[in-house]
Amino acid sequence: MAPVAWRTPPRAYGAWETVASNITEGLVARGWKNVTLFATKESITSAKLVGWVEKGYEEDKTQIPKVSECLHISKVMQHANEFDLIHNNFDYLPLTYLPFIKTPMLTTIHGFSDPDILRVYHDHKDTYYVSISDSDRDKDLPYVATVYNGIDLSNLTFRETPGDYLVHYGRLHLDKGTHLAIDVAKKSGKNLIIAGIIQDQQYFDNLIKPHINDTSIKFIGPVNPVQRDALLKEAYAVIHLNTIPERFGLVMAESMAAGVPVIAMDLGSCREVIADGQTGYLVNNVDEAADAVAKIDKIERKKCRLHVEENFTIDRMVSNYEKVYEEIFRREARKKQ
Amino acid sequence: MAPVAWRTPPRAYGAWETVASNITEGLVARGWKNVTLFATKESITSAKLVGWVEKGYEEDKTQIPKVSECLHISKVMQHANEFDLIHNNFDYLPLTYLPFIKTPMLTTIHGFSDPDILRVYHDHKDTYYVSISDSDRDKDLPYVATVYNGIDLSNLTFRETPGDYLVHYGRLHLDKGTHLAIDVAKKSGKNLIIAGIIQDQQYFDNLIKPHINDTSIKFIGPVNPVQRDALLKEAYAVIHLNTIPERFGLVMAESMAAGVPVIAMDLGSCREVIADGQTGYLVNNVDEAADAVAKIDKIERKKCRLHVEENFTIDRMVSNYEKVYEEIFRREARKKQ
Repeated sequence: MAPVAWRTPPRAYGAWETVASNITEGLVARGWKNVTLFATKESITSAKLVGWVEKGYEEDKTQIPKVSECLHISKVMQHANEFDLIHNNFDYLPLTYLPFIKTPMLTTIHGFSDPDILRVYHDHKDTYYVSISDSDRDKDLPYVATVYNGIDLSNLTFRETPGDYLVHYGRLHLDKGTHLAIDVAKKSGKNLIIAGIIQDQQYFDNLIKPHINDTSIKFIGPVNPVQRDALLKEAYAVIHLNTIPERFGLVMAESMAAGVPVIAMDLGSCREVIADGQTGYLVNNVDEAADAVAKIDKIERKKCRLHVEENFTIDRMVSNYEKVYEEIFRREARKKQ
Repeated sequence: MAPVAWRTPPRAYGAWETVASNITEGLVARGWKNVTLFATKESITSAKLVGWVEKGYEEDKTQIPKVSECLHISKVMQHANEFDLIHNNFDYLPLTYLPFIKTPMLTTIHGFSDPDILRVYHDHKDTYYVSISDSDRDKDLPYVATVYNGIDLSNLTFRETPGDYLVHYGRLHLDKGTHLAIDVAKKSGKNLIIAGIIQDQQYFDNLIKPHINDTSIKFIGPVNPVQRDALLKEAYAVIHLNTIPERFGLVMAESMAAGVPVIAMDLGSCREVIADGQTGYLVNNVDEAADAVAKIDKIERKKCRLHVEENFTIDRMVSNYEKVYEEIFRREARKKQ
């Protein structure tokens, strides 16, 4: 079950739809039978596609999101008994239909968007949860496992030779610490390229824009996968000084896949995604980050790539979900004994 | 099933919660057994109260409305088989849980807040609907009946003697035509008192405020039931030139209950609530409304009161719902034959 905010897979943004698509395609490729993707009707999949909502509500603003959501979920639930397992990549709303179906459901919690949604999770503890990092867990919920998101390596070229720039990319937002990346560049005397969508215009106007020039601090706007690959070619290191705990951290995995070490704030999942001193450095402030820049040449760039290949590929993610499914089937079988 | 936006009954605003409360108390008073009100936990009722949400989300802004809504609805549905009938005063979201319960549900459609919510209604035609006026119906939905809202007459004193003022009250909003009431006052040479909450500040600042003085056009702000009764004592007629179709029109029923004739735009339910020429006048524009003011003395104020007593009391509403419930029980019995 994918969300219905965007097409699955999404045309551009849509992280949860991307994960749902990658899992679906992976399961089909591995020969699972009767794999069905519940998503918007215009979605694309090699599995069977079932949908009731024509387009994602983010792509068709005449829709009230809640209307599309509840229609979508209700229909999935009406088909529940056709399946051995429902894998919910949607969020909390499907949980409230659980009392009415017999099929087990696995919910990947892609994030707690607000503390208040915990009320729903805490009300449904007799079901199956996966966290996307060990750090992104609520202490009162039972989890089957952590399964890291897998990334598509096809547009991430490994390069042995470092580039000249510090690079910061992703959403330009206080949470992602774009302003701190600028501080690190200035402190370490390196040039910086910033890329990504401006998610908070006020933040950008006040804290980022005044520093941008065409030499030491460049801003190039959003990048598609091909442009991202070219950007990472120029990277000496990626600076990722998030100011709130990272849930997983796609940018870090992508950077390492291209062989680029990451200097990240030691907050949330960063410690799980980066092997400290091996594929980058975990730091606590701008000064430590500037010091880390000075010792980037101690990182073997091949190790960065290898770290991703071993831990953060789509293939690895699908294998890990297969293990979770098998565990759920075992537990369900025990229940029936 | 009441909504969980406000306490049931609400402290001030909360039209749907008010209706849910009035029906509940009416059924208990008439001796129905096992009447249960599903509402916020702090609600007040002589029926059995069941709730999972502590306070209404409009009264506790830490809540995400959707979280409170889905938890509330799911719990109602989990208790469904304890009841002969669920009377849903909530809106569309409960409909998406209908495929999973066997108890029949009656949904009072208090309004279509957006055309998009029709997707849910149209997806659930094999259930029971009540409209709150004949005019507020969707042509593609099956309705059991129209049941008009009932009003509490305890703070609405009937007075034989007309007051001196034109009165306009309710939400101050373009939809309610406050600006047209001012035009009518000026055209007819009568003074006007405006009362109510300012729902659209820009509308108020641009179209209402410039006309307010302390003599011919007065604005007295929101009124509670006691103040409303005092206001209606001063009323020669109530001007209600709504610019969009009225769904029901509480203000019109309240005015007539106090013996005050209503001059209303002939849009939506106004024709159903007002007996044209008997308890007020239906008009199509400001000129007609000004003409109607000139012939208000032809209306017998006792007839206004009588019209409400016969059609728009809580007692009448409860009786009408009892008829609907009986009809549903008959249809359900036929299904089982």
